[in-house]
Amino acid sequence: MAIPTMYWENGTLYLLDQTLLPGRSEYVACRGYRDVIRAIRTMKVRGAPAIGVAAAYGLALAAREAAQVPDPWDRLRAAAEELKNARPTAVNLAWAVDRLMEKAAVRGAQGVDVAALLLEEARTLQAEDEAANRRLGAYGRDLLPHGARVITHCNAGALATAGYGTALGVIRAAREAGNPLRVYATETRPLLQGARLTCWELMQEDIPVTLITDSTAGFLMARGMADLVLVGADRIAANGDVANKIGTYALAVLAREHGLPFYVAAPVSTVDLATPSGAEIPIEERAPEEVTHVAGTRTAPEGVGVWNPAFDVTPARLVTAIVTDRGVVRPPYGETLPRVAGPREAPP
Amino acid sequence: MAIPTMYWENGTLYLLDQTLLPGRSEYVACRGYRDVIRAIRTMKVRGAPAIGVAAAYGLALAAREAAQVPDPWDRLRAAAEELKNARPTAVNLAWAVDRLMEKAAVRGAQGVDVAALLLEEARTLQAEDEAANRRLGAYGRDLLPHGARVITHCNAGALATAGYGTALGVIRAAREAGNPLRVYATETRPLLQGARLTCWELMQEDIPVTLITDSTAGFLMARGMADLVLVGADRIAANGDVANKIGTYALAVLAREHGLPFYVAAPVSTVDLATPSGAEIPIEERAPEEVTHVAGTRTAPEGVGVWNPAFDVTPARLVTAIVTDRGVVRPPYGETLPRVAGPREAPP
Repeated sequence: MAIPTMYWENGTLYLLDQTLLPGRSEYVACRGYRDVIRAIRTMKVRGAPAIGVAAAYGLALAAREAAQVPDPWDRLRAAAEELKNARPTAVNLAWAVDRLMEKAAVRGAQGVDVAALLLEEARTLQAEDEAANRRLGAYGRDLLPHGARVITHCNAGALATAGYGTALGVIRAAREAGNPLRVYATETRPLLQGARLTCWELMQEDIPVTLITDSTAGFLMARGMADLVLVGADRIAANGDVANKIGTYALAVLAREHGLPFYVAAPVSTVDLATPSGAEIPIEERAPEEVTHVAGTRTAPEGVGVWNPAFDVTPARLVTAIVTDRGVVRPPYGETLPRVAGPREAPP
Repeated sequence: MAIPTMYWENGTLYLLDQTLLPGRSEYVACRGYRDVIRAIRTMKVRGAPAIGVAAAYGLALAAREAAQVPDPWDRLRAAAEELKNARPTAVNLAWAVDRLMEKAAVRGAQGVDVAALLLEEARTLQAEDEAANRRLGAYGRDLLPHGARVITHCNAGALATAGYGTALGVIRAAREAGNPLRVYATETRPLLQGARLTCWELMQEDIPVTLITDSTAGFLMARGMADLVLVGADRIAANGDVANKIGTYALAVLAREHGLPFYVAAPVSTVDLATPSGAEIPIEERAPEEVTHVAGTRTAPEGVGVWNPAFDVTPARLVTAIVTDRGVVRPPYGETLPRVAGPREAPP
């Protein structure tokens, strides 16, 4: 990607405003942690790994603010909670904040400058996420047959991560290895991340992509025009149930109906062994206006009721394999996931 | 419906411009048959039964024009072909034009004024369509359990017909019989007929409706929030395969996965016994701009490839029952459909 999802400069976090893509490439300047929370809530930055990294920088900003008040730790812990609650479904957010707060507690007690430490940790997390995606891509690329026609949903690309992407990371890796695959990108209502972001990312790298509406995917499979489905994830429960963008579950059911593999690509930071199954994953419900308006224009009658869950849960039984940065994991996930996502070590 | 889908006045067909709803209620004046073709192609009038009736009026306009030229029958037959080709999938269009041309041939040979005859026949067809929908509603309403939560797709309402509607006709009839049902309307990308038209129709009659994106329907079922799916049809093949708005097939697969009934409501004019199965139904593919733009705003990158089939085919094995104006038809459709849709008689 020529254009980074986010960067840090002169004490400020700059987030690429993904609500404006592909029309405009503009950055939002976040000078305090509440700017970061606002950007996460309004989805200027989105994608489970990307909001994890953004929240880490947010914590660094919060530490700088906390240093000005009498009880900096209270202030920092409150900011950490606020950051973790910015969006409920993606677990990478809480994972990143908790990881940084643990380090801050240990090193802070040793007298280290916490704000500087947290900034350094955020930078490390960002670099690790991209590195994890590249490993994940290398593990996953062999799952794609030569010339595969891949359906993907939403955007699990460089824009959803610190770089390279998860589902799109596997696609990039396969392409780099010479696989002449092609992609069908679902537009992904309501916020059109597939149309706006996935098409844009793939076209920048000359990976052939065809845009379809979400409800065209089933007919595409029925016509024999697709070989597999490959998506990202916002949280993977200990039993292998996968929370991901609304519409993922329907794709998984349709893939099973047509005998197509259904793959999920996510770093182990997306696996939440503390959540036993999908039933315990909180599913964010967002504002009706995302559905009643498109590109600022009202398209549904005033006052209509709306149900707008941002995510759904795909049961583990429909997931052929999960591609992680520590290898490809297959059922039974209750046994295989803890092996890769258990007590964390530093990446090799 | 306070607002008719179309009406004839002073030699002109007025079509409610459905592309402007719900924001504006304006009529397009069609003074020649090519105005009608243009309105059908641009979906100012849409819905299989409604375009059948509009084409019938179009033929009346064509006959008036043909009366001015040396060889009126050649001109009229050419116009009939043009009208039939305005859109390929819905069979009601060809059915209406063929029915009127047969009558014109017989009565024209007897010296009757063909233009006046065709206008009278168009009016008859319009009245018959609404009457058929009311009968269909009465047959279908008992399929809906008390307080049913019904998923419908696209708009199979008064706006898609000469009045009352097919799928929404069943819903109206159940409501009139005191059933406190509620509806989940899929928005129906790309042209949002569910959001724009179905919600509007139902809200006008105080029928509770909740709008969802197309890809939310599967999760809605998984959560146990829906009892059945009920849709219209653009063409039903002799074996019971159903062509309907893109996305219908995915809903049928999901309904089966969740053990929910999947009902299709359509007048017998939508049954095409001359088409053996869904494989022979021509599926219209429409312009990429319908997907790359929403409400006039570009949302996908310039130059992206698009596959935009307007319809899909749901195999008969997924269809629990077909509600027609001659009764509820159940499998095996190859035997039961010819009984209701065979050689046509005048309706009772």
